[in-house]
Amino acid sequence: MSLLKIIQGGGVVSTPGFQAYGIHCGIKKKKKNDLAAVVAEDNCEVGAVFTTNRVKAAPVQISMRHVKKGNIRGILLNSGNANACTGDQGLKDAMEMVKETSKALQVKTSQVLVCSTGRIGVALPMDKILAGIPKVIAQASKKGGKQAAQAIMTSDTFHKEFAITVPIGGKKVTIGGMAKGAGMIHPNMATMLACLTTDAAIEGKALQEVVGKAVNESFNRISVDGDTSTNDTVLVLANGKAGNAKLKKGHRELPLFYEALKKVMQTLARMIVEDGEGISKVVEVQIHGASSMADARCHLEAISHSPLIKSSWAGNDPNWGRLLAALGYSGAKMDPKKVEIRYDGILAVKHGMPYKTPPARLKQVAKKRSFTLTLDLHQGNAKDWMWVNDLTEKYVTLNKSE
Amino acid sequence: MSLLKIIQGGGVVSTPGFQAYGIHCGIKKKKKNDLAAVVAEDNCEVGAVFTTNRVKAAPVQISMRHVKKGNIRGILLNSGNANACTGDQGLKDAMEMVKETSKALQVKTSQVLVCSTGRIGVALPMDKILAGIPKVIAQASKKGGKQAAQAIMTSDTFHKEFAITVPIGGKKVTIGGMAKGAGMIHPNMATMLACLTTDAAIEGKALQEVVGKAVNESFNRISVDGDTSTNDTVLVLANGKAGNAKLKKGHRELPLFYEALKKVMQTLARMIVEDGEGISKVVEVQIHGASSMADARCHLEAISHSPLIKSSWAGNDPNWGRLLAALGYSGAKMDPKKVEIRYDGILAVKHGMPYKTPPARLKQVAKKRSFTLTLDLHQGNAKDWMWVNDLTEKYVTLNKSE
Repeated sequence: MSLLKIIQGGGVVSTPGFQAYGIHCGIKKKKKNDLAAVVAEDNCEVGAVFTTNRVKAAPVQISMRHVKKGNIRGILLNSGNANACTGDQGLKDAMEMVKETSKALQVKTSQVLVCSTGRIGVALPMDKILAGIPKVIAQASKKGGKQAAQAIMTSDTFHKEFAITVPIGGKKVTIGGMAKGAGMIHPNMATMLACLTTDAAIEGKALQEVVGKAVNESFNRISVDGDTSTNDTVLVLANGKAGNAKLKKGHRELPLFYEALKKVMQTLARMIVEDGEGISKVVEVQIHGASSMADARCHLEAISHSPLIKSSWAGNDPNWGRLLAALGYSGAKMDPKKVEIRYDGILAVKHGMPYKTPPARLKQVAKKRSFTLTLDLHQGNAKDWMWVNDLTEKYVTLNKSE
Repeated sequence: MSLLKIIQGGGVVSTPGFQAYGIHCGIKKKKKNDLAAVVAEDNCEVGAVFTTNRVKAAPVQISMRHVKKGNIRGILLNSGNANACTGDQGLKDAMEMVKETSKALQVKTSQVLVCSTGRIGVALPMDKILAGIPKVIAQASKKGGKQAAQAIMTSDTFHKEFAITVPIGGKKVTIGGMAKGAGMIHPNMATMLACLTTDAAIEGKALQEVVGKAVNESFNRISVDGDTSTNDTVLVLANGKAGNAKLKKGHRELPLFYEALKKVMQTLARMIVEDGEGISKVVEVQIHGASSMADARCHLEAISHSPLIKSSWAGNDPNWGRLLAALGYSGAKMDPKKVEIRYDGILAVKHGMPYKTPPARLKQVAKKRSFTLTLDLHQGNAKDWMWVNDLTEKYVTLNKSE
């Protein structure tokens, strides 16, 4: 991976040809940024992944349509209100946001995407948003990445940006991104927004393919609370400015671009899970030796959904009994007599029974801010993994009211 | 239901021909009861439901075998140690418990059932248990129901007993029971033990059938944390002493017996959910208008698994947005535009959007110690329901360490 170079403090604006900014337009009561714009100087190819929730917020419905038309020039994002479960009014409002943005950018409405995050079921304060749009776009610049990243935060405690460069076909290609997460994060993308920019020259179809794959290896492998939201969106814009020979399906450098894209997404995903609501630790759960990929995923789901397991993590308790029980009720194949469980590689359970490792040694691992749990089923060769938070009293307190 | 008469303070010993007791034999460090026996004067028919977890504790494996042979005369139960994930030693120990009990009762080993609940993966203190068995059986009496119910408690805050009578074929039939629950409760029976006695004359096959059905309508409809344990067991012993004409499949009074059995199981199940670890309320979640029973169950699972929803309940927050999101990601059919949500019958959401009911009115309901949520999908005619706890900081604190 030494070909990938991190841009210190980088984000969406690190990529040539992109500008951004974020302002407080008044959706949030507190004077925090709540409206962001990412602006492209040129028409962009786009790769996108949207929530799998059947309840899709209005901005998701609009953006899904515009992604199909391509030639994207800008993204408008707001926090504080999800514009979800808002019916026809919500669709009208999302469309208004797109129109006002396209006017300010002097492009077609279909060239603008829109994302919203925040409370569900409340109408947007459109007067404030419409007044904010020309302002945030006028101020978009090469220095506004941080403000934009701040403007999409909800219960996030820090803003999330990351950027790298990678040589493709002798040209320096940049990939930068920003994201927001916190509560309601689970595979299939919970209230999670991510917006990435790149100057790679890449065909739309190839871009969509690598974006889908990279999302599966990053944002779809984090779990805060198992809930999937109505608004999740990952957008990647590519303007081709790097001047590399256009990447197409089957191109020999496409895998390198994919690795670089995955690196940015995994870094942002890790930031999201590290910033899970009220968390005290992140556990990498590795399933080995499952009889199929579906079975591996099924075991992961059982573990990442268990409040009993996640509470024990909060208590630094190497409670492998609860892990074994979860594997047992997951519905996927397992034979208790074959299961091995390791904490950071240290054997805790062999043949489904406690191994001789002193409990104090396991406790040392369970105390760490992050550790790896490896559960080997010895049923086959399928593997899968996920980053999962613990469950703390603070999570509950934070979610008792919005 | 006026045919059913509650026996005040009744339990397993309310039924003629059954005795019980509970003692402290030393499995628990604190001087609390941890060993119980339920003794039948006559050979009993048995109906049983065991955990669906692939990891089955040793006592479950032994009891499953003995249930098939029938003619049960006694049940030995202990708390403080689940005898699960204990390998061959665990099986040997469970068998020892059965043998010692059968010796004290002067019956065959196959006539004894055994249940354990408590910590997983630790060997039983067999010396203490073997010393305790003759004592608890010697003291079994018509007055020992409470002590027995106390001896199966783990994190339960109160012991759980209930009994009723019902006239069957002109004879008074009694059904009494005890149960333990608390954490790790979910459909498919989490660490949950229930032991019922009846003097109804009923064929083994008919008993097994009504027990299975009644468990589905009671213990399988409660959810504390979505975890299913290695030890769950529901046992119903029937000694035939009431002298009614033997109930068989198709007998016209079998449905009445079923109703009575369900009443006892539902009452015990409700006690379990009311005593969920750290809970502050119980919500009856009703799914209406689902396109199939499987879909209704799928929506229920999504809601009962959501820490986000369950935290909002703890905060008295009528957060229907999270409910709508859960219906959306459950995987089952739904059209957001058709969904109706009611709090104790009061409309909160119509056509997937907030109804004009003042939020303060919904808040009044959400504040109650128990209320009913009705989610109507308008997709078909399938219905299902479940009793679900909220998620509190106290739950997490209790489960951070055992």
